[in-house]
Amino acid sequence: MTGIFYGVGVGPGDPELMTLKARRVLNQAAVVVAPESAPGRGSLAADIARVHLDDPGKIAPLTFPMTYDRDALDAAWQANLDAVLTHLESGDVAFVTLGDPMLYSTCVHLMRHLRSRDVRIETVPGVPAFCAAAARLNRAVAGENETVAIIPAAYRQPRLAALLAAVDNVVVMKPSRGYAALAGALGEHGFLENAVMVSNCGHATERIHGDLRAVDPGAVEYLSIILASKVLASKGRAA
Amino acid sequence: MTGIFYGVGVGPGDPELMTLKARRVLNQAAVVVAPESAPGRGSLAADIARVHLDDPGKIAPLTFPMTYDRDALDAAWQANLDAVLTHLESGDVAFVTLGDPMLYSTCVHLMRHLRSRDVRIETVPGVPAFCAAAARLNRAVAGENETVAIIPAAYRQPRLAALLAAVDNVVVMKPSRGYAALAGALGEHGFLENAVMVSNCGHATERIHGDLRAVDPGAVEYLSIILASKVLASKGRAA
Repeated sequence: MTGIFYGVGVGPGDPELMTLKARRVLNQAAVVVAPESAPGRGSLAADIARVHLDDPGKIAPLTFPMTYDRDALDAAWQANLDAVLTHLESGDVAFVTLGDPMLYSTCVHLMRHLRSRDVRIETVPGVPAFCAAAARLNRAVAGENETVAIIPAAYRQPRLAALLAAVDNVVVMKPSRGYAALAGALGEHGFLENAVMVSNCGHATERIHGDLRAVDPGAVEYLSIILASKVLASKGRAA
Repeated sequence: MTGIFYGVGVGPGDPELMTLKARRVLNQAAVVVAPESAPGRGSLAADIARVHLDDPGKIAPLTFPMTYDRDALDAAWQANLDAVLTHLESGDVAFVTLGDPMLYSTCVHLMRHLRSRDVRIETVPGVPAFCAAAARLNRAVAGENETVAIIPAAYRQPRLAALLAAVDNVVVMKPSRGYAALAGALGEHGFLENAVMVSNCGHATERIHGDLRAVDPGAVEYLSIILASKVLASKGRAA
């Protein structure tokens, strides 16, 4: 008998933007697993969970190293999988994810491995970061009958150009890597007139950039999101 | 002195998927405005709000008719704007929206009108319906370095084809109108092998369609969402 593995979205950063269900599941779990990129480094998701846990002592950090070394990565994943399976012997395990677990999260990979071990899996959705950025600006991500593309920063030419040509609105996640090329591509497709970048949304260090051309490409914060539209100009700003 | 207008996302349907902030703001508001498509018809957003309100008596329904008659629409909007402004004289007003207020919501239009009257506006983001559908399936909306397009059902050829050609994953919102043409377009661009449609996600009437070709185009539920991917096949299912 093993517990259930819950992938839990803790929301975009503000602890109050966690759902009621996420709070319940985190408190009912035997162990709350919090991924971190280096041992002892901690994570924003763990910080958010801690605010809501009756017993913060049940948070178990797990290191998912950011490396391109295939062997090191495989070894880390195997160790993490074993650790989660061990935790599941003591009851339900909640794996916390910033934003939503089904959008660009490590959680999905872990679920795939666990499914092959017949572990029961459930996902608790969370408010994605881009919705928080749009809320901060009171700005529509997309209006009626419009499309929106969510684009991770690492997405590159030439496929980026075709997508920018075909879509009405874009959300670019974590644009710090390759910012200059990205801003150039957005400009070529008419997205810069109404583009806004929100960095560290909801944090004390939050910054809103209304002119993407004026941003220093070397100084873009990691937790940034760009909202841009090539149809907004014809309608006036959303709000 | 008028109150603050809050656009509040109540989440995708399950009342437990509302955020802690939404619950606080709804309870602190003097009036909770709930849009409905016809007088007395009610709304899912109002039902969700009611679960969490200490005083459900402060819910004020407001009719936003679904009509293409421009004059009738303008008259209804003017009346609704006046009603909200009157409510704001008694304190803060929370306008509830299913899912997230900045994604395809009436809320944004209302905010634009209110901003021109110098009303202070705040948005409380919510879990979008597509995140709940992905969670229900334990399925990634998009994997690392992949793009996703959110497409409203009314979006049509030929622009749809260019978008489907350029993007890795799609989310189609409310595909009941023009389902057959949509499914055809998805098939042409390699999206049908891994497509799933979730109807009435999280409700007693929930249904999951794993084969979109087998769906009767005339029987698609209004509250449906399609998640499809043309890159998933090469990687195996997400979870």
